[in-house]
Amino acid sequence: MSVANYVREAKQASFRLMCLPPNAKNKALTSIAKALKESCSLIVKANKKDYDAAKKLRIKNALLKRLILDNHKISQMIAEVRNVAKLNDPVGKVLSQVELDRGLMLYQVTCPIGVIGVIFESRPDAITQITALCIKSGNAVILKGGSEAKNTNKILVKIISGAAEKAGLPKGAVQLLETREEALQMLKLDECIDLIIPRGSNDLVKYVQENTRIPVFGHSEGICHVYVDKDADIKKAMDICFDAKCQYPAVCNAMETMLVDKDIAEQFLPLIIKKFKRAHVVVKGDEKTRKIVKHLKKANQQDWLTEYNDLILSIKVVDGLSDAINHINKYGSKHTDAIVTENEKTADAFLNLVDSSSVIWNASTRFADGYRYGKGAEVGISTGKIHSRGPVGLEGLVIYKYRLIGKGHVVRDYIGKNSKKFKHKVIKK
Amino acid sequence: MSVANYVREAKQASFRLMCLPPNAKNKALTSIAKALKESCSLIVKANKKDYDAAKKLRIKNALLKRLILDNHKISQMIAEVRNVAKLNDPVGKVLSQVELDRGLMLYQVTCPIGVIGVIFESRPDAITQITALCIKSGNAVILKGGSEAKNTNKILVKIISGAAEKAGLPKGAVQLLETREEALQMLKLDECIDLIIPRGSNDLVKYVQENTRIPVFGHSEGICHVYVDKDADIKKAMDICFDAKCQYPAVCNAMETMLVDKDIAEQFLPLIIKKFKRAHVVVKGDEKTRKIVKHLKKANQQDWLTEYNDLILSIKVVDGLSDAINHINKYGSKHTDAIVTENEKTADAFLNLVDSSSVIWNASTRFADGYRYGKGAEVGISTGKIHSRGPVGLEGLVIYKYRLIGKGHVVRDYIGKNSKKFKHKVIKK
Repeated sequence: MSVANYVREAKQASFRLMCLPPNAKNKALTSIAKALKESCSLIVKANKKDYDAAKKLRIKNALLKRLILDNHKISQMIAEVRNVAKLNDPVGKVLSQVELDRGLMLYQVTCPIGVIGVIFESRPDAITQITALCIKSGNAVILKGGSEAKNTNKILVKIISGAAEKAGLPKGAVQLLETREEALQMLKLDECIDLIIPRGSNDLVKYVQENTRIPVFGHSEGICHVYVDKDADIKKAMDICFDAKCQYPAVCNAMETMLVDKDIAEQFLPLIIKKFKRAHVVVKGDEKTRKIVKHLKKANQQDWLTEYNDLILSIKVVDGLSDAINHINKYGSKHTDAIVTENEKTADAFLNLVDSSSVIWNASTRFADGYRYGKGAEVGISTGKIHSRGPVGLEGLVIYKYRLIGKGHVVRDYIGKNSKKFKHKVIKK
Repeated sequence: MSVANYVREAKQASFRLMCLPPNAKNKALTSIAKALKESCSLIVKANKKDYDAAKKLRIKNALLKRLILDNHKISQMIAEVRNVAKLNDPVGKVLSQVELDRGLMLYQVTCPIGVIGVIFESRPDAITQITALCIKSGNAVILKGGSEAKNTNKILVKIISGAAEKAGLPKGAVQLLETREEALQMLKLDECIDLIIPRGSNDLVKYVQENTRIPVFGHSEGICHVYVDKDADIKKAMDICFDAKCQYPAVCNAMETMLVDKDIAEQFLPLIIKKFKRAHVVVKGDEKTRKIVKHLKKANQQDWLTEYNDLILSIKVVDGLSDAINHINKYGSKHTDAIVTENEKTADAFLNLVDSSSVIWNASTRFADGYRYGKGAEVGISTGKIHSRGPVGLEGLVIYKYRLIGKGHVVRDYIGKNSKKFKHKVIKK
């Protein structure tokens, strides 16, 4: 079957998914969880194949690690699916209601987006989470995983789509593409696919953005900052900066650049850099930083633009709040940026003026995450500026439609002199 | 100055607009309204120049009409600006609030999108409405109008930006591009521009979509349907279909195709077609329609895909609700579609299953409009499936950011055995 056919099938399925009652979707999710549990050994076997092949190809250790699915990991995946079933149904919520005139009522009601294409690398456990979120939100999903995990992906989608169909979901609601060429073909089908979510490296996201007219959610880079203000509590600043850099440096919400106000730099920098060095962080500083703490590597403009994803940190001494905000808005990636200060006015200005999807006062950037934000599960983190921003959960997979209900109302009656007048009475907003 | 410079200036302005208090924005709008009033004769003079030039070029009458700004039209424009000032401020609204843990509070707060590029044709009055909405929502705006209205556009933007600056808005908040080449350059500046809104012909919208990676709001086509169900009240069906086609046929929410259930066709079609013919509507029918009413033109597949924007209508006899829904989802443009029926169950299925931004029961498609929906003013109508759909008002010009406020919280404390647990207490949702 060609990609266009797969996608058409998904579109047809999406029309049926659109109006499934919550319990039908939850039943499907429960069946999927059960089927995954029953086929655990099959999944582990397929995954072993992928792992062995990847090892032969000398794939990086970090990637290898993310590829592995053992019984423990699969249990987590199953728990996630069950968890999504428990979340509130995001479809059919009345967002607003206006009585336009007597007997003419306008409802703004959430509905699924339609067909969602998801392109992800390695990490086969992304399949269960994303599929569960798509089903729960009434969307059809077309998945394309990394080739390193092809056997794992195949068995997972086979189990999931089989169980979903048995539980009454339409055929074609969950599909898998296998090659890069197929993925590229999908990106061209903007008539049938409503949204693309890329999850993976910056290169993947950029490739997707450059090759499609379909709206794309996600983030290519996570260049996150912590600004240590002159009114910072030194202890908090130490804890937050250390956590933001070291707690898990490989992820997108880790700090890449630390900005320090010049008035606190001499006091703060020697302390925090000592702490970083003990944790084997490679510290790079601008000129002013290197005057305060000797023998640091030089940070240049390229560093302000780099997502290290590693135990490397660039530091810049800034001339107060505005300088810090300007730096972040210029070099940041609109992901997550934090300020440490005891001054509420300064914090408020920072939170207002930094143009990022998450802005944080006196806490670590590492909190910017769907689970920690209480969303139950996350589709990804978006740095875009329309629809959804920051960690995106179920709510990002729905849009709304207007439902207008009348009793034979026509516009002609509202035109011209002596015409009927609209009431526009807001019932819910 | 180059386009890149204009756009950079707009970006800088957007950072300042972001956090203007409501009264600063309203003051600017009031000043703009005042300045427009004082310069009324200048505007009329510039517009006369454009009109005379356009007349010489033998531009179509309909376009010529939309180009004219007289004192009455300018008063309306001024009233619209004042009206936008009166709307609720859409920025800074707390959409949700979650206590992640003691002392760690997450707010989801609306904020402006940033820089919005608007490309429109003819109709210079679009400038005041769009600019007012952008200012009110804290966005910078770059406008590119039709070349037929270049003198009018120039004087309008000069008056508006002058008044805005005098009232304290940052320089560069409202800008005008003058040539097609400049517009194309703008479409390439996806680093600085956050959203493009094209207002004009299908060709314009398609051109914009094909030439930019910036998200685009709007609609290229308005192929709207009315489905007359077998349980329709004939009187309502007559009124609604006539209104949807004839009340103002040149607009995007007018009906282009009428679908009629086979069980009511013999009764309904002769009556409505007689009424249409009296109103000089050219009626085209499919085979079944032409068996019931003789001497009609033939409607073919191309007709189902055509937005006539004129007193032309295609009619198809369908085999019940599913057939109607399938036709609409296949050939429609996701704009606005209506059902006429007295059967609530049938209506509900239609409203659920038709995948359009406005779905209507027993009222005319012509109601799908920002003013009639009670939005005060409208940016345009979007048939996209993310962010905003249907008539888009102020709410479509904002997005949100997450503001997380802690007391030195770090993620490390929430990892591993015996760690702190999140509360995720929903304060507002």
